[in-house]
Amino acid sequence: MSSTNATASMASVSESNRSRIMQHLYLNGISSRAQIAKALDLTPAAITKITAKLIEAGAIKETGDLEGMKNRRSIGLTLDTTQFHVIGVKFARSFVQIGVFDLAGKPLNVQELTHVTEETIDSAIAELHDTINALLDADRLILAIGMAVPGPYLRNVGRIAVVSYMRGWQKVNFIQEFGNAFRVPAFVEQDARAGAMAQYLFDPSITDENLAYYLLGEGVGLGVIDHGVILNGNLGAATEIGHVSIDINGLPCDCGNVGCLERYCSAPAIHNMIMEEGDLIPEAGAMTHAQACRTLFAKAKDGDARAQQLVRRVSRYIGFGCITIFNTFNPSRIILGDIVAEAGQPLLDEVRKVIDEHVIHELNETTTITLSALPADAALNGAAAVAITQFLDHPSEFFELT
Amino acid sequence: MSSTNATASMASVSESNRSRIMQHLYLNGISSRAQIAKALDLTPAAITKITAKLIEAGAIKETGDLEGMKNRRSIGLTLDTTQFHVIGVKFARSFVQIGVFDLAGKPLNVQELTHVTEETIDSAIAELHDTINALLDADRLILAIGMAVPGPYLRNVGRIAVVSYMRGWQKVNFIQEFGNAFRVPAFVEQDARAGAMAQYLFDPSITDENLAYYLLGEGVGLGVIDHGVILNGNLGAATEIGHVSIDINGLPCDCGNVGCLERYCSAPAIHNMIMEEGDLIPEAGAMTHAQACRTLFAKAKDGDARAQQLVRRVSRYIGFGCITIFNTFNPSRIILGDIVAEAGQPLLDEVRKVIDEHVIHELNETTTITLSALPADAALNGAAAVAITQFLDHPSEFFELT
Repeated sequence: MSSTNATASMASVSESNRSRIMQHLYLNGISSRAQIAKALDLTPAAITKITAKLIEAGAIKETGDLEGMKNRRSIGLTLDTTQFHVIGVKFARSFVQIGVFDLAGKPLNVQELTHVTEETIDSAIAELHDTINALLDADRLILAIGMAVPGPYLRNVGRIAVVSYMRGWQKVNFIQEFGNAFRVPAFVEQDARAGAMAQYLFDPSITDENLAYYLLGEGVGLGVIDHGVILNGNLGAATEIGHVSIDINGLPCDCGNVGCLERYCSAPAIHNMIMEEGDLIPEAGAMTHAQACRTLFAKAKDGDARAQQLVRRVSRYIGFGCITIFNTFNPSRIILGDIVAEAGQPLLDEVRKVIDEHVIHELNETTTITLSALPADAALNGAAAVAITQFLDHPSEFFELT
Repeated sequence: MSSTNATASMASVSESNRSRIMQHLYLNGISSRAQIAKALDLTPAAITKITAKLIEAGAIKETGDLEGMKNRRSIGLTLDTTQFHVIGVKFARSFVQIGVFDLAGKPLNVQELTHVTEETIDSAIAELHDTINALLDADRLILAIGMAVPGPYLRNVGRIAVVSYMRGWQKVNFIQEFGNAFRVPAFVEQDARAGAMAQYLFDPSITDENLAYYLLGEGVGLGVIDHGVILNGNLGAATEIGHVSIDINGLPCDCGNVGCLERYCSAPAIHNMIMEEGDLIPEAGAMTHAQACRTLFAKAKDGDARAQQLVRRVSRYIGFGCITIFNTFNPSRIILGDIVAEAGQPLLDEVRKVIDEHVIHELNETTTITLSALPADAALNGAAAVAITQFLDHPSEFFELT
């Protein structure tokens, strides 16, 4: 154990140093060897040796001389984010999205597979295999696949432990099904954690080393980066805010617990509340969860008082989730994302009000709460981020480096 | 960011390697240079160089040849835990404990200062300065002081943010007051986190890299080690389980939140419940919180049905806290400690019952729940562990090494 990350166990110091160089170039752009050496506290000799291997393997390349540099080591090195592609796959309860991205997270091609029900999970998976293979055949730059699945996801096992409203997914072993099924490796991660990776990698305005991505979609999830490290817990089931109880006398949940946050502010929960309101949205019964939520938000924006009141009620539950995030993870930024976050500023205002009333002053004033600036399907970007993180963390698995 | 700790930022690679060698010797006992090189994936040349410095500085020393070793590098190296001492100080709400420990956490001398009230905090601090200086004068082997304070403790600031039932402590800046006040440095940590460090360092039966120490004393706190790294959050206010709400319609707390766990299963909360029971413990009004709890537990053990029922009620609240720990941190072990854990097996049985009813099967069966095997004042051991962790993490701050 250590009070910092510095002495964490290292399977391989040289792989770690390679990875640090890749990450530095990814996050900071073109850099000289001297700049990298200084930033990473490695010797110039070590940098020269490691970068030579990376260049030879095609992972990075030299650019021309850097302007304005006064020392000899002024040749720039770059990790060209347009030269490597990844596939991202987002599994929601009732749909599967798939996209090809470059390494900067830019979507090159996004498609949604047919609507999924409990009965069509098997055929959806078969369709996905075909779609992925077609994409891989068409684009030789693709080097990894990232997949984002609803949590609690048991990373070591490959299975989702609980899927409220859609239990059929629990039978799928994602690692067995996809891990080695293609010409490139596939990596699976809980969706909110994938979303946190996307915020960290793809939003240039975010520089926090302690951030929480609060996913408010078909499920409620959380991904936390603490001092630059994603929190997994023992089985990868940490940061499951959706199954933290906000009321020990509350509604029962499929996970076994009662009063789970997911029962109060997920899209299906909001859809239920809309239905209970009777004529608020008369056609709600025929809508998907996302459609019902978006109709509600539009009605609230148009000034409908009942819709506004329901948005406020949901926002307060989301706020109580934030308070738990403050007191469990103390991030410097909480980012609200996915379908429910589309309610926008009114939601954010009410969440802040709940926080102002209930959170310790010093924590409140040092924590930023924002809406995701990434597309609403941040988990799809997140799936790409999962693949990119693997690529940056384990370069030797993608290039001949030894 | 990284999906593992391996590429975490390193202020100094050489200090990190020194620290890893110190930690290896601390946790594994006498080892040869070859064994260390293998365990840490460092070259024999690097080990020879770094250990030479550490030996020269007096941090570690050589023992005789190791028996049964077949290769040439068979001289043993050791970090002699009896040759270095630390002071541990535990600040509870109403008392301050202080002890001298060897590096293995063995207490050499423990004393309690006079009872503290809101009015006597200043004089208690003055007395503590005198006591520490006297101990330092008497024992030249002492090289650091660790202090454990109730959370939420703002590590960067040096102040406790909220102290339910005893607000006077919030005015004390611990870093300014103690950090450089003595001939050796003093380090301050939230008490439950200190307790987690103690479990990790001092209980030889615990080998988990993902553990949670659940402090149930004058306050309710949590310290979490995730993949070998202690979780701090941005300001050091993470893992504050005592202020996670278990009921958004519940009792208001000094922190601003409602339904905080601390209001339901801390020693003061239990003391309140005892008082509300009227004649259950007639003399409870004149007791300290700890005395009232211990009297209750003794009565329950003697078969008093009302006492047993109250213990069960409290245990269920503790169990709900465990469920939140499962879903937020997914540790492989939860250790219950401090005053309230003295209720023992009946408490543990009821906690397990609540967990069995409410936690996802896969998480439940991969997580061990135990009572602390360390003395009841694990936070005092924890204070010593805080000092020892600093010593192991930053050897160059204690020895001439550059």
